[in-house]
Amino acid sequence: MTTSPLLDAYRLTEEPKWHPTGEEVAQFTAAYSVRLPVMLKGPTGCGKTRFVEHMASRLDRPLVTVSCHEDMTASDLVGRYLLGPDGTIWQDGPLTLAVRHGGICYLDEIVEARQDTTVIIHALTDDRRILPLEKKGELVRAHPDFQLVISYNPGYQSVLKDLKESTKQRFCALDFDYPVAEIETSIVASEADIPTSTAAVLVKIGEKSRNLRGQGLSEGASTRMLIHTGRLMQQGLTLPEACRLAMITPITDDPDMRAALEAAVDACS
Amino acid sequence: MTTSPLLDAYRLTEEPKWHPTGEEVAQFTAAYSVRLPVMLKGPTGCGKTRFVEHMASRLDRPLVTVSCHEDMTASDLVGRYLLGPDGTIWQDGPLTLAVRHGGICYLDEIVEARQDTTVIIHALTDDRRILPLEKKGELVRAHPDFQLVISYNPGYQSVLKDLKESTKQRFCALDFDYPVAEIETSIVASEADIPTSTAAVLVKIGEKSRNLRGQGLSEGASTRMLIHTGRLMQQGLTLPEACRLAMITPITDDPDMRAALEAAVDACS
Amino acid sequence: MTTSPLLDAYRLTEEPKWHPTGEEVAQFTAAYSVRLPVMLKGPTGCGKTRFVEHMASRLDRPLVTVSCHEDMTASDLVGRYLLGPDGTIWQDGPLTLAVRHGGICYLDEIVEARQDTTVIIHALTDDRRILPLEKKGELVRAHPDFQLVISYNPGYQSVLKDLKESTKQRFCALDFDYPVAEIETSIVASEADIPTSTAAVLVKIGEKSRNLRGQGLSEGASTRMLIHTGRLMQQGLTLPEACRLAMITPITDDPDMRAALEAAVDACS
Amino acid sequence: MTTSPLLDAYRLTEEPKWHPTGEEVAQFTAAYSVRLPVMLKGPTGCGKTRFVEHMASRLDRPLVTVSCHEDMTASDLVGRYLLGPDGTIWQDGPLTLAVRHGGICYLDEIVEARQDTTVIIHALTDDRRILPLEKKGELVRAHPDFQLVISYNPGYQSVLKDLKESTKQRFCALDFDYPVAEIETSIVASEADIPTSTAAVLVKIGEKSRNLRGQGLSEGASTRMLIHTGRLMQQGLTLPEACRLAMITPITDDPDMRAALEAAVDACS
Amino acid sequence: MTTSPLLDAYRLTEEPKWHPTGEEVAQFTAAYSVRLPVMLKGPTGCGKTRFVEHMASRLDRPLVTVSCHEDMTASDLVGRYLLGPDGTIWQDGPLTLAVRHGGICYLDEIVEARQDTTVIIHALTDDRRILPLEKKGELVRAHPDFQLVISYNPGYQSVLKDLKESTKQRFCALDFDYPVAEIETSIVASEADIPTSTAAVLVKIGEKSRNLRGQGLSEGASTRMLIHTGRLMQQGLTLPEACRLAMITPITDDPDMRAALEAAVDACS
Amino acid sequence: MTTSPLLDAYRLTEEPKWHPTGEEVAQFTAAYSVRLPVMLKGPTGCGKTRFVEHMASRLDRPLVTVSCHEDMTASDLVGRYLLGPDGTIWQDGPLTLAVRHGGICYLDEIVEARQDTTVIIHALTDDRRILPLEKKGELVRAHPDFQLVISYNPGYQSVLKDLKESTKQRFCALDFDYPVAEIETSIVASEADIPTSTAAVLVKIGEKSRNLRGQGLSEGASTRMLIHTGRLMQQGLTLPEACRLAMITPITDDPDMRAALEAAVDACS
Repeated sequence: MTTSPLLDAYRLTEEPKWHPTGEEVAQFTAAYSVRLPVMLKGPTGCGKTRFVEHMASRLDRPLVTVSCHEDMTASDLVGRYLLGPDGTIWQDGPLTLAVRHGGICYLDEIVEARQDTTVIIHALTDDRRILPLEKKGELVRAHPDFQLVISYNPGYQSVLKDLKESTKQRFCALDFDYPVAEIETSIVASEADIPTSTAAVLVKIGEKSRNLRGQGLSEGASTRMLIHTGRLMQQGLTLPEACRLAMITPITDDPDMRAALEAAVDACS
Repeated sequence: MTTSPLLDAYRLTEEPKWHPTGEEVAQFTAAYSVRLPVMLKGPTGCGKTRFVEHMASRLDRPLVTVSCHEDMTASDLVGRYLLGPDGTIWQDGPLTLAVRHGGICYLDEIVEARQDTTVIIHALTDDRRILPLEKKGELVRAHPDFQLVISYNPGYQSVLKDLKESTKQRFCALDFDYPVAEIETSIVASEADIPTSTAAVLVKIGEKSRNLRGQGLSEGASTRMLIHTGRLMQQGLTLPEACRLAMITPITDDPDMRAALEAAVDACS
Repeated sequence: MTTSPLLDAYRLTEEPKWHPTGEEVAQFTAAYSVRLPVMLKGPTGCGKTRFVEHMASRLDRPLVTVSCHEDMTASDLVGRYLLGPDGTIWQDGPLTLAVRHGGICYLDEIVEARQDTTVIIHALTDDRRILPLEKKGELVRAHPDFQLVISYNPGYQSVLKDLKESTKQRFCALDFDYPVAEIETSIVASEADIPTSTAAVLVKIGEKSRNLRGQGLSEGASTRMLIHTGRLMQQGLTLPEACRLAMITPITDDPDMRAALEAAVDACS
Repeated sequence: MTTSPLLDAYRLTEEPKWHPTGEEVAQFTAAYSVRLPVMLKGPTGCGKTRFVEHMASRLDRPLVTVSCHEDMTASDLVGRYLLGPDGTIWQDGPLTLAVRHGGICYLDEIVEARQDTTVIIHALTDDRRILPLEKKGELVRAHPDFQLVISYNPGYQSVLKDLKESTKQRFCALDFDYPVAEIETSIVASEADIPTSTAAVLVKIGEKSRNLRGQGLSEGASTRMLIHTGRLMQQGLTLPEACRLAMITPITDDPDMRAALEAAVDACS
Repeated sequence: MTTSPLLDAYRLTEEPKWHPTGEEVAQFTAAYSVRLPVMLKGPTGCGKTRFVEHMASRLDRPLVTVSCHEDMTASDLVGRYLLGPDGTIWQDGPLTLAVRHGGICYLDEIVEARQDTTVIIHALTDDRRILPLEKKGELVRAHPDFQLVISYNPGYQSVLKDLKESTKQRFCALDFDYPVAEIETSIVASEADIPTSTAAVLVKIGEKSRNLRGQGLSEGASTRMLIHTGRLMQQGLTLPEACRLAMITPITDDPDMRAALEAAVDACS
Repeated sequence: MTTSPLLDAYRLTEEPKWHPTGEEVAQFTAAYSVRLPVMLKGPTGCGKTRFVEHMASRLDRPLVTVSCHEDMTASDLVGRYLLGPDGTIWQDGPLTLAVRHGGICYLDEIVEARQDTTVIIHALTDDRRILPLEKKGELVRAHPDFQLVISYNPGYQSVLKDLKESTKQRFCALDFDYPVAEIETSIVASEADIPTSTAAVLVKIGEKSRNLRGQGLSEGASTRMLIHTGRLMQQGLTLPEACRLAMITPITDDPDMRAALEAAVDACS
């Protein structure tokens, strides 16, 4: 496939590794074939962003990623007028770029954004596949290769901040979770460049921290944190030192929780 | 009928199919004949947008659709000044375009918008049929073919966010709901390009999910979701796999609700 | 009387009919003679806007109508600077137009607007009759023919959103309500172009709906809705069908209220 | 005294009549002699604005009146940059005009304004007598003739919206109230151009309405309303008709209060 | 010492008198010697502003005073871009002026300002002594003579509106209160140009009013109010008349408080 | 290492002294080697800013420090368009400067900033190491030497204002606290240029004040305040006088707390 050079900066230069844990690759491919919008559900740091990068690379599409936040407006996605030497000129936003030139647009944690952001995608996610640029008075018909992907962390949503039913129903959805121990060990070993045996110890510690969820910790250590710990050990820090730096101190200040996590480290080392 | 070329982009290129479920086509036609504003009431994904597209096509009018949201202001509808090489120039918004050149303007989920948006339509929806562009100091008299249509989801309204009585009384209203099984089956079969027998199974599952409304689900699967499921089956996914992807995972994370929906799928497949 | 051509667009092209229900025409005329600001009080759709249009036409004055809303600011009324080829230029808002050139300015539902809007009229409504354009540094002395009219719906006001005493005391006030049956029948018959007998039936139904106010309906059917119903019958809809479309479905979704209104229709037809 | 021609528009063309009710003229004059800022306290429509106009005329000073409101900002008082053909140019606001060229600036109901408005006057109301134009980087030293006057309605203030102690202490204050019957009668007779006997009746009705304060009325009829009533009688309305229009309907919708007020009218006519 | 001519307008033309009540002059001088930021604490109108003016004059430094308020932003202090004939130009705000050219910057009632205003001073008040102009991308290193002074009224602070601990800890602090009777008498006599005996009476009345604090008065009469009263007496008003105008009416509307204050005046005159 | 001259202003001219209290220097160096983002945790004034300055100097990197506050937006960090003679030009914000040219960016008290500020750093703190300039449509890939450091005061965080889990998990973290007595004494002695014996007395007083935390003081005297006190003594103030000025008056107005602190001073002097 070919795409406009405007999206070249958004092409991934190397295919990010992905360790499949089920049928997610085939299912995403099926959804892409019929251009069904996809919602990725799962906790922090379990690999949703990595997966969409992997799929974009595999499907040979540029990937436009937008981290949503509560001050984001529709204009940040769609575009705005700027003042040039001959008056105002229009500049496409990241979503419009992807819609117009056929990229995959990934809206990370879309519920964080303001309502206007979620409504803007309605006409894109039904049979019309159009993006109305109301400020410009233009209707952009989506490029045949365009697809929309969003992420959603079920543990975070509250009554006040949730997707509207009429938005949810426009997507098909894939569940994600931390990988099983064997796979996580091989991910940590290869990403942090440490021996498998060391990685296995870190994964065991990570699992123990996840068991503390709901007992004082709002989340356990993610796969990402295990990789960080491994990398610090590569720089010569000891296991307890690296765990404290990259896995314990960042997530809790509660003395009891810290003691429990330190004990878990001691038990494994 | 003829219209200004400015609305050409808003002409539907092909007439969207509509499966009538009552007298709605005749009633909308009567309201259009006397240019009475119309309010379409009903749940998410039951076909309100599709119906207004069908009627616009049938009446040979361009259709300007605006998805309303809580950050939308009157200027987004009416227009604004932009800075050009010779100073500010006025640009008509989507509503003004339709008013001036004789299109149908469809304001989807208007209660989501800010108050100024609903008040702006008052002078358009009584005998005056004018749109005051206060920022421009212009009174636009509506083109004889102009009509206003809005949608309204009764299940969503709260005391804080509802149309004012003085707005409601300016509209006549049509009720919408999901189609009866036979009609829905034929819609799903034709839209997803799957055998009628498969479509009938999907419709049965959809009905079961709608029965769970109020018991833990805020809404059941819409007709749109059934079509999505069918399309994924067309790509080779199995019925349970496609149902999980397009019908179950998107709408609930509750383990009990998920089990109930999976059971409904098993019972039908 | 003559007025500036700038107000020509605001002249009514034909005098709107008015069916007097008391001394309101003489009283408004007296108030206009001494240029006393007038407040029109009454429920939605009972004819306040129509009355002020009738009086403006009768007094041969242009009428500048502004529908107020909660996002309206003083600048929307008074005017603002726009950027032209030689820098900023001032553009009069609708109120300033009327003040400067001698029109009647009608601020519909002024309590909806922000406080700055109501304060801006203070110097206009006492002996000074001036409008300070603070942003422009200009004091506009009102044209001798200028008059201010506002509307006010007592049923809507809350403690949080009401006119300040110091504002109310600047106006004289006229009460409005739905017309008596005989007059309302003749209005509906003439406006909807239907036989008097049919109009009488609609008025009876309207009265029944108004009796349900406070028992589950926040307002009954207005005169405007009765006219809408008549017009749909003119297009061939049956009485129950037209009533459902234009009188019942728009104002309630409560099954009991709908049944009560349908029964009222059946009893009258 | 002479003043800059920039303030000419703010000179009163004729001296407004003032009926003294105490030593207020001498006291205001003493305060002006030492340029002490003055606060006028009292209920709506009792003549505070008229008094400051009278004094400005008597002291031969231009008067810049600003009606404060909750959306007013410091820039509205002090001035702002506008875009001209050669870039931004500074435009003095009404307060700066008076400070620079020696007028009396009257800030009506200053507590309505935002906090920045009240703080801006601090350096003007102590020994420094300077107005810092922070946006312009200029310190304006007040013209020797400049004086600041503010009004304050004690009945309106709440805990949330009151002058700060550090602001109050910068002013001396004069109390105002409705004039005694004899004086009020002569004011109403002369302003409305009606016989003294009729004016006396209106004043009696006004007093009865003021006695209802706190019993269901938030304020009684002001002197201004009595004058309005008289003017309508001059146009041929009867006493009860004029009272209803200009004194009763504007201030209450409560049937009991209306009956009490109508009874007061009947008893006096 | 010499300073940039840009600060000339901020030089005090005559040294304001100061009646020391303790070691405050020596202590401020010590703090200035090591350029320690100073916080002046105390009630309204007790002389904090006067003291900082005196010290600036004594230390021969220009004084840039800014009255803070809740709508003040960091840009109001630091500076902003303005549009000139050749595009945007930067204009230093009052704080930047003092930092760059070596003045004393006095932020009066800084807690009133928004948070960004207090954070902007952090890098100025530790060893770095820099002011980052983030909008301009410039780091201004403070002139060796620059010093920061803020005022703080402990009686006003609430939990919601207080300086952050990390701000407080950057300052040394001096307490202020009303001067003792003898000193206050001499201040009032010299400032109002009245005999010492009269000033002594006013000081006695002022002390009585301060004793009513907490019993219905939020603050008693400040030294400033006593001076105002004296000045009005200089214009020929009697003691009770002047006290009512400048000391009683401004601070309370409560009849009991007013009676208590009038009694205090009677007892002293 | 070499860096762009654009960051020259951000190079530290002399290496700030640092008294190590553990392995923090080695641990920070390890984190920097793998470019892991670092979070510094600890109370006000305990040396976090000093530590990051020391490390930047030691690693020979420019340091861009940003004090975050609740009005800070993503644009303040990332950059914005300014209007130049030929239309808008882009200006990099402090974060973009560091990302593009390889500095260390230190975001002080990042939780104070608005959500969009924390989300902007997500793509910078995982394997992508990119900064999307959404307004400019540019993806900035981080310079190999770039590193991100943030500070975090656990005592301040509330439920409403805390880092999101998905942000915390991207950092490794170092704990900071006030140094032990011996080290703190040597810091105070050298920074304030006073004898060690005097410094030891100040440290003892500081420790007593920290013991009052939670008993009426929200924080005790920081190391910074002890240095301030020492500097004032260098200017000739007595120990009690200097303590009152720089350690007691700034942090409390409570008479009991003040008495307790004065007693602590007396006991030590």
